[in-house]
Amino acid sequence: MNAEIICVGTELLLGDVLNTHSAFISRNVSLLGINIFYHTVVGDNKKRLRDTIKTALDRSDMLFLTGGLGPTYDDITKNTVFELLGLKSFVDEAALNKLKGIFEKFGRPMTDNNISQVMRSENSFFFENEFGTAPGLCVETETKTIIMLPGPPRELIPMFNNYVSPYLQKKSDCILFSKNIRYFGIGESSLEAMLKDLMESSTNPTIAPYVDNNEVKLRVTAKAETKKAAEIAVDKMIEQVLRQTGEYCYGIDVKGLEEALVKYCIDKQIKIATAESCTGGLISQRLTSVPGASAVFEAGVCCYANRIKTKMLGVSEVTLEKYGAVSEQTAEEMAAGALQLSGADIAVSITGIAGPDGETLEKPVGTVFVGIATKEVIYTKMLSLGTGTRSRDDIRNLATSHALKEMLDTAKRCNKHMGGSKPPPK
Amino acid sequence: MNAEIICVGTELLLGDVLNTHSAFISRNVSLLGINIFYHTVVGDNKKRLRDTIKTALDRSDMLFLTGGLGPTYDDITKNTVFELLGLKSFVDEAALNKLKGIFEKFGRPMTDNNISQVMRSENSFFFENEFGTAPGLCVETETKTIIMLPGPPRELIPMFNNYVSPYLQKKSDCILFSKNIRYFGIGESSLEAMLKDLMESSTNPTIAPYVDNNEVKLRVTAKAETKKAAEIAVDKMIEQVLRQTGEYCYGIDVKGLEEALVKYCIDKQIKIATAESCTGGLISQRLTSVPGASAVFEAGVCCYANRIKTKMLGVSEVTLEKYGAVSEQTAEEMAAGALQLSGADIAVSITGIAGPDGETLEKPVGTVFVGIATKEVIYTKMLSLGTGTRSRDDIRNLATSHALKEMLDTAKRCNKHMGGSKPPPK
Repeated sequence: MNAEIICVGTELLLGDVLNTHSAFISRNVSLLGINIFYHTVVGDNKKRLRDTIKTALDRSDMLFLTGGLGPTYDDITKNTVFELLGLKSFVDEAALNKLKGIFEKFGRPMTDNNISQVMRSENSFFFENEFGTAPGLCVETETKTIIMLPGPPRELIPMFNNYVSPYLQKKSDCILFSKNIRYFGIGESSLEAMLKDLMESSTNPTIAPYVDNNEVKLRVTAKAETKKAAEIAVDKMIEQVLRQTGEYCYGIDVKGLEEALVKYCIDKQIKIATAESCTGGLISQRLTSVPGASAVFEAGVCCYANRIKTKMLGVSEVTLEKYGAVSEQTAEEMAAGALQLSGADIAVSITGIAGPDGETLEKPVGTVFVGIATKEVIYTKMLSLGTGTRSRDDIRNLATSHALKEMLDTAKRCNKHMGGSKPPPK
Repeated sequence: MNAEIICVGTELLLGDVLNTHSAFISRNVSLLGINIFYHTVVGDNKKRLRDTIKTALDRSDMLFLTGGLGPTYDDITKNTVFELLGLKSFVDEAALNKLKGIFEKFGRPMTDNNISQVMRSENSFFFENEFGTAPGLCVETETKTIIMLPGPPRELIPMFNNYVSPYLQKKSDCILFSKNIRYFGIGESSLEAMLKDLMESSTNPTIAPYVDNNEVKLRVTAKAETKKAAEIAVDKMIEQVLRQTGEYCYGIDVKGLEEALVKYCIDKQIKIATAESCTGGLISQRLTSVPGASAVFEAGVCCYANRIKTKMLGVSEVTLEKYGAVSEQTAEEMAAGALQLSGADIAVSITGIAGPDGETLEKPVGTVFVGIATKEVIYTKMLSLGTGTRSRDDIRNLATSHALKEMLDTAKRCNKHMGGSKPPPK
């Protein structure tokens, strides 16, 4: 089954809005074994939209159309499809009554434009819109399936998950199932070199590498008749991959380092704290983006000013004077201070030069110190993250990832040191 | 001049990578008066790529192609273009020597594949790649211009800014110039209603509204022969727009609330501090993402645990016991504590329920208290941000925007109260 996606919207063509719909639909549809061969974006223009839909119907079995279903434009998108397929259209009375009910409930007048939202053709049915007035529409002919979805993400995403995805699953004759193995601290090409033979010889499951936010992930995907069978094949392949690359892997199917760390700490009841200078709260922001982080994250201090480093974390004025705020010594004292202040099991600190200003000859932009303190040990790592092409944001992000990875490694060592796992929380 | 963009890459079709290139190129190209009518994504497949380029050449004057210029695929993209336009191709000796030099410098062997990167055709020239080995290529025939760019953003963006954009500017007969008016606290439809007549009657400059990260921005764009003339027309229109909507506007051409706040505070020498619970460092992360923030941002505390709220910010145990961590009283004491601890002029606090857990009957998900403390005044604002469709991240983001807006308003009041502006810093 070959499909393509057409997104209608001038705001996309102007570059004001990122095309997240195509990525979202592609990701979900690929998992069902449906191949997406083209993405197209076209503006709210009748002739160009018509040409685009015509070309798509000529070359693909299935079409996803997003946008252009609102009361202003829907005649264009829907009517073009009906016309090209030679289908008669009419007002769906049940949907119309429902729509009237919505307008009455909110005391708003319903205009003629709104009626076009409940127009459909023979051989079609609506997908319910729980977050807006324009329903989605599916047109099925003998050879083609056309799925039209509303533009706002808040309407499209739940409609897709709740109605379109189950519909597609029923149509599909096989299931694709994937898991992601996540790595930090190893490049894509090194990983590929380690797994070259395995990657080349594997056709089901397949192994595909992706670079994502300074990390590499390997997606292992299996095709099978049932989800269970695909999952077993994926897990077996993951075992094989980890035999060669396990030391660089930090998690399977987690969203990122922050989720891996928070989940591990929740499981082992390890409490954590942070003290940030150049990353300015980015570590604590990433940690607390994980639901449930409050169970393990005790406190975070963001101390830009030296005065605050001294006042809140007890970094000595002598250290700051002698070695500077961006130094191994300051990073150590910041981590030690955060550990004491919070009473956590592990504290991390970051101080560095994220740029664009503040560099010196000895400490160029990208010089970052990560400090780690536990009850047993205090140490720092120096990182050189400035390559000339990395922006302030890049350096802050990368420094944060290093700090999260260091905390995760420390948590695992701590736990071992404490003689294995504590009982899980009730 | 009508243009379109074709991005080559299977990772885009699978939804693993967002199509940021199309948005980036569109944004920059539209400003030069070049109309983009289509975006297409196609995979690394010879036939489909050929069909796509052929269709594009038939309907557009200018083509932007991204990706597929690396040593593996470039024969496909470049050769297809050469073939469709009937152009002879050859190895560019100067570029080849340069490439050899790069490989020698890094002591890496150069393969035959790499040679294809320095192939070009008659009527073409290279755009230099300062961050990779594949140069960009521009092919100019009597009626068509085809610009081929490398896929990695780190290579494409500087190449576009440094070489492609100046080249396009020279070709363009008019300049489009835009400024963005930024609003927080008013919806798109209310803003449109206020400006309806002006928006409808204006053709040059034009006024277009966009919703972006819980905010609305109005983009005012003028077309003129020189940048200066366009800028004057834009500024005049902005004055007119602000006469009707000024009270909701927080800045012109700033990147967001955080930049508006940091710039204002730098200008007026106002120091700020934060105390965060449910936003977990997001305010300080947004503030410190602005270069130069260290001049005004003193300290941030992220206190998830009640114990830390008491220990670091002096929130009384009685308050926490009696009213709870998510309460007006706790927010006030957090802000007051942060003010005292940091010695800043303004401190902000946030405590709330970001979800998905933690709600009570009285305090549903989305209940957030923002506290503000200055030397003169302490107050809190209660926000109800949970609508059922907002995620944990949405609520955290929106709460942060409210806090930043409140700080900006307070900074402006503070400054007035202190009798006008302080002298700017040296």
